[in-house]
Amino acid sequence: MDGIRVLACDIFGTTVDWYTGVARQVADLLPDADAGVFTSQWREKYLPSMANVREGRRDWTYLDTLHRESLDELLERHGLDPDEDTRRRLVRAWHRLPAWPDSVQGLTRLRDRYVTAALSNGGFALLTNLVKAAHLPFDCILSAELARSYKPEPSVYRTAARLLDVEPGEVLMVAAHGWDLVGAREAGLRTAFVERPAEKGPDHPADRAADVTADVSAGSFTELADLLRRA
Amino acid sequence: MDGIRVLACDIFGTTVDWYTGVARQVADLLPDADAGVFTSQWREKYLPSMANVREGRRDWTYLDTLHRESLDELLERHGLDPDEDTRRRLVRAWHRLPAWPDSVQGLTRLRDRYVTAALSNGGFALLTNLVKAAHLPFDCILSAELARSYKPEPSVYRTAARLLDVEPGEVLMVAAHGWDLVGAREAGLRTAFVERPAEKGPDHPADRAADVTADVSAGSFTELADLLRRA
Repeated sequence: MDGIRVLACDIFGTTVDWYTGVARQVADLLPDADAGVFTSQWREKYLPSMANVREGRRDWTYLDTLHRESLDELLERHGLDPDEDTRRRLVRAWHRLPAWPDSVQGLTRLRDRYVTAALSNGGFALLTNLVKAAHLPFDCILSAELARSYKPEPSVYRTAARLLDVEPGEVLMVAAHGWDLVGAREAGLRTAFVERPAEKGPDHPADRAADVTADVSAGSFTELADLLRRA
Repeated sequence: MDGIRVLACDIFGTTVDWYTGVARQVADLLPDADAGVFTSQWREKYLPSMANVREGRRDWTYLDTLHRESLDELLERHGLDPDEDTRRRLVRAWHRLPAWPDSVQGLTRLRDRYVTAALSNGGFALLTNLVKAAHLPFDCILSAELARSYKPEPSVYRTAARLLDVEPGEVLMVAAHGWDLVGAREAGLRTAFVERPAEKGPDHPADRAADVTADVSAGSFTELADLLRRA
């Protein structure tokens, strides 16, 4: 891990627990839905909705807008018709999510040695508000919005390196998803996998270390801090 | 001050003391120069060098590059010819500057109530490193680089509001310079003046509250926190 200067950290699933956070708000706002199933189905639309932007089939579109479109489709499929205010509050569920128990402590230690940056497909405003509310100790916010594309498009990772005036190989991408690390590696970054077995809730398997190629692999941000200190 | 959600804070002179910080490094690196005079003359080239970019006479250029060009001119004028490494270190003097004594405490209090953003003409990397080293408690870094222009161009202030998904009128621009607040107001932001009489060192007068139009005026970030709490 020589020469790493920046840790670019994914957010949804990696530093915060989107499943628990969104399911709790779905349960509050849509009492007739199965909150766990609804949340999982909503998230399943995440990658396909961004692919349309990444692959040029539609213009740059905010993640909030993609979340809203997915939500409307899903509500119709479930025969639910909440009012506009409820729909807006559901989209904003993704703006306020609980940190995993190790995220703040691990990032605090890592920040002593590296520039820590949030690098997520969430919009700049979403990320700023989410990171602030969860007290995540980042030095800066670097949204895919700044590249007007979405991960795993290489331009997102390269824009992050360019803005921080470092070479791609001086950035360690930290994520709980294999597809994110594949994209980061293709853009020249180094890669750290953080395994989050509970990321997708009790009924859906998350990515596991055994199946993901990464320069380093850890079970938490505190373990990652230990491993990088020793490296 | 109703409806303010974001504090966009200027950096050079407003939250950090560029004169003392740069003059100290000039004294170290150029022992034959009068450090105070050299630092003041270097800063005098700041606004004119950015005007060429703002007014379209040249393409977007990093502040580091503008600082380097100004430095080379100034060294020649003073008959000084330090090596390349010294020139690079001088440009990087602007990346590591001491906070004014009230900045951390005042911003910490303001951050409880507002999203706090750095909004400077310094590049994104420069600002991230400077803010980290000075322990300034910002929620995000918003460089003029993200608009590929320079303050007081309205697009810089509007890009900041757009990225944070707020209206321009929900942003309070905090700066020690009248020209910055004029630009912010033209872009629809609200304005706070922080008076820094020592900003330009002992021999050059800084902007004074009596001469600057602003929605609120304070002598420090702690006083600004007091005023906004009462407002």
